[in-house]
This record gives sequence, C-alpha cells and structure tokens, in this order.
Amino acid sequence: MSKYEEDDLLIYIVSDSIGETADRMLHATLSQFPKLTSVTVKKFSFVKDEEAFRNILELAHDKNAIVVTTLVNPDFNEIGKAYAEEVGLSYIDYMTGMIKVIEHHTDMEARHESGALRKLDSDYFKRIEAIEYSVKYDDGKNFNNLSEADALIIGVSRTSKTPLSMYLANKGYKIANIPLVPESPIPESVFQEKNLKVIGLTASPEYIMNIRTERVKILGLTGQAEYNNLRRIKEELSYAEEVFNRLNATVINTEFKSIEESAFYIEKYLNKK
Amino acid sequence: MSKYEEDDLLIYIVSDSIGETADRMLHATLSQFPKLTSVTVKKFSFVKDEEAFRNILELAHDKNAIVVTTLVNPDFNEIGKAYAEEVGLSYIDYMTGMIKVIEHHTDMEARHESGALRKLDSDYFKRIEAIEYSVKYDDGKNFNNLSEADALIIGVSRTSKTPLSMYLANKGYKIANIPLVPESPIPESVFQEKNLKVIGLTASPEYIMNIRTERVKILGLTGQAEYNNLRRIKEELSYAEEVFNRLNATVINTEFKSIEESAFYIEKYLNKK
Repeated sequence: MSKYEEDDLLIYIVSDSIGETADRMLHATLSQFPKLTSVTVKKFSFVKDEEAFRNILELAHDKNAIVVTTLVNPDFNEIGKAYAEEVGLSYIDYMTGMIKVIEHHTDMEARHESGALRKLDSDYFKRIEAIEYSVKYDDGKNFNNLSEADALIIGVSRTSKTPLSMYLANKGYKIANIPLVPESPIPESVFQEKNLKVIGLTASPEYIMNIRTERVKILGLTGQAEYNNLRRIKEELSYAEEVFNRLNATVINTEFKSIEESAFYIEKYLNKK
Repeated sequence: MSKYEEDDLLIYIVSDSIGETADRMLHATLSQFPKLTSVTVKKFSFVKDEEAFRNILELAHDKNAIVVTTLVNPDFNEIGKAYAEEVGLSYIDYMTGMIKVIEHHTDMEARHESGALRKLDSDYFKRIEAIEYSVKYDDGKNFNNLSEADALIIGVSRTSKTPLSMYLANKGYKIANIPLVPESPIPESVFQEKNLKVIGLTASPEYIMNIRTERVKILGLTGQAEYNNLRRIKEELSYAEEVFNRLNATVINTEFKSIEESAFYIEKYLNKK
C-alpha cells in the first residue's frame, strides 16, 4: 500500500546531463497507466555535485517521490542506491545495469564523464545541413538539386508531409516535400530525376476530410468549400495515386500512425540495401 | 572475461513498439565507451508474438549479443528474464522496474498494451501546427502574427536558429526566427509586439568565422569574402547585441552546445512562471 492517494504521484528525474532520455523512458512507461491523471515530474538536470545530489534524495524521501536517474558517476549511483535501501525510497537507475553489462562484454571501463552531448562533430553538421535543406525544400518551394535529397515526400494536403519531413531532418535526412494538387502538376524535371527515393503519403478520404474541416475552422477560412469536400478529396487522392505510380513511390498510409511511426517505416525503407 | 574481442559488441534492441526510446538510452550509455569503435545494434520493432520473441532470444544467445528490451507485456518480460538466467545471456529490461514501482505507488495496474504511440490527440495536432508555423516563420520569411509565437529566435547567420526552431517545433512550440543583418534591420512592428518572448543566439566571432568558412567551402560560394571576414562578423555581433537589448532578449551562447542542450535552456525559460 502506498502512503498517498492514487493521483498523487511525484517523480524526480536526476541526470548529470539534460535528463531527456530518462524523461522519454519515463513517459513511455507512464503511457501504461492511462488512468493516472495527475503525475508531477520534476527534472533535475546537470547534477554533478554530491551535496546537491544528496539534497535531492532527501527531498524525494520527504515528499515520497520516486527517483529516476541517468547518472554516469558510479559513486553517485552507489550513494543513491544505498540511500534508497536505507530509507525505503523507490529508486530506478537507468544507467548502471547497462554500463556493467558492456564493461563485462568488452573488458573496457566506462569513462564516467557526462556531457557527451556537447559534441560538434560531423554528425552535428550533417544534421544542421539536413534541417536547412528540408526547410528550404518544404511544400514544393524548390525543385532544383532534388538529387541531393535522401527522399522526396509527396501527398495531398493534410497527409503530414511537413511534420514528417522535419522529424526526419532532425535525424539527419535531407527531405524534400511537394504537395499534390491536380491543378498544379509537379514539374517534369522531378520525373527525370534518377535514383530519387519517393515516399507517397496517403489516408482515407474521410480522414482527410475531417482533418481539413478542423483546419478550416482553426484558420477561419471562408470561400474554400472545395477544400474539405469529399468528392474533391477523392479526386485528389486518385490523382495522387497516378503520381505515386509514375514515380514508383513507396506508399505509407499515415491515418492511424504517429509521426514517429511513419518516420520509422520511411527510415527503414531508406536504409534498405 | 568475454568470449569476444573488445570490438565485437553486438546489441539487440527488442520492443513491442518502435524501440526508439531504448535506442536513445543505449546510445547515451554507449557514449560512455568512446574507445568502443565497432558496435552493431540491431533493432527488432513491433515484437508482439511469443515465438518471434523466443527466436530473437535464442539468436542473441547464439551470437553472444546483449539484449535490451522495452516490452510492456509482463509475460514476455518473465520469459526473457528466465531464459537469460538459464543460459547466461546479458539482458537489460528498461520497462519492468519502473512499471512495478508505479504500480506499488499508485495501487493501479499497468495496462500492458503497446502502441501507445498511435494517439491522434490534441497534442498531436498542436505539434503539427507548431511545425507548420515554425517552417512558415523560418528565416524572417514572415512578420505577421508574431504574437502567436511561443518564442522569437534571433541571431546572426550560423548561430543555429533554424535547427533550434525545428527541434523546438517538434516538441510543440511555435517558433519564429529572424536573421540579424545590419543592412536589413528587422521591422519596427517586431519591436511593438507585446509579450513576445525573444531568444538571442550568439557565439564567439572566431567560432562563427570557422563555421562560415566551412559553409563557404561546402556551398562553393564565391564573391562572398565579407561573409567569413572576422571584422565583419564582429560588426554583425555588436549589432546583434543592440537588438538583443532593445528586445530584452534572453541570450544563449550556442558555441559549445548541442541543439538539445540549447533547446533545454530555451524550454526552461519558456516554461518559467
């Protein structure tokens, strides 16, 4: 039995870096408790001082908080574990187990230094370049140098082209995206591109209609009755299918997928062979 | 002692969802082993079938792979743990410990269902809207409706405005960014905005010069001698400082920071009070 009522969950994330990975891990776990409506997560970042760490532990004990850590300093992890056992604190260490396993498998010692994030290496520059490229090539703004793109994403309005492009760009892929509109066909030069990997995004007409109706409301658009008209959307989608075929596109239905999930399938396709 | 040579590390990620969180956790841990040059990470996503899971475990045992899991099904986690103990497999379960702790604290039971990612909720729409806004307001392309922005990011060329904007947009923040160029001052209307939160990005002149020189090389630019000229950069930076002061900007030096780290400070500032 817990001391608190069910909706009084307090969680402290303690990290010697930002604590973002622990945060994600925690949220993946919390999604297993959909009825848990009130959770307070407090993140203590860049904790590198022993006294500060001990203060957080004591505070957690006072407040009956769960402590989740990603700390690379083994002394800190020892201190945390010992304190948790002593006072009965709920304590999860996401780092030590895996570090020990790797040390065992490799006979290497972990360097126990935080701040591995501060790297300005070629990956960093590649990623910045990919983001800038993808912003520049968003929404059909550019058709030149498509051969530089890791992929071209196409689809009718509201199939998540821009969010997917930006998500993939953040991971280092140069993505161009072009909206498919029957009245403004995409330039012939795009069809001439050799080795261009093309992703076609699609969804059911009803789904697209619903999303467009939402959008019309939000933007307060008027005089755009065609935009969320089902017959019109069906026309657009059959035009899209033609273009998918001509460009030999890999088609993804984004209707029930999160951005992460659609991106997962695209990445998988891009990394094939 | 391990059976393998030090550079032969094989890691299997097993998830009933994408496995991205485990992937990040793993890379944070691997960054503790900078001398480990050859690691092979194989990700098994959407593992929901018991036989498939047992096959992966056996394969891991055959290949002496470390197994890292994020599985919400407690039966699978039992199977994995038992098998690992039986055959001596290195096995890390990132999910069970925290689920048990939360169950204990809340007297609730986890729902043990994967695929929590497929949500199309208001957060999803908010995020898409934020990304579209931020792309539209990138690089000074728009000055209208700046009041809708969660933040305006300003800085001279090569201070990471666009990557930071897109990263924050992915997290649901509407970000506008405007480059600071002495010759094309930002419009007076921007100074009139009430309640606009402004972030100024800066770095040392030498750092900016190095990055610009890199860029000139990559883009094959010619006739832009001023762009990476140190005296010119210093002028731009002192102009930037003036604008920061006028707009009461929170200034961040991005020189030694990853995108994640700069974003962390911006988020912290945006969520204050």
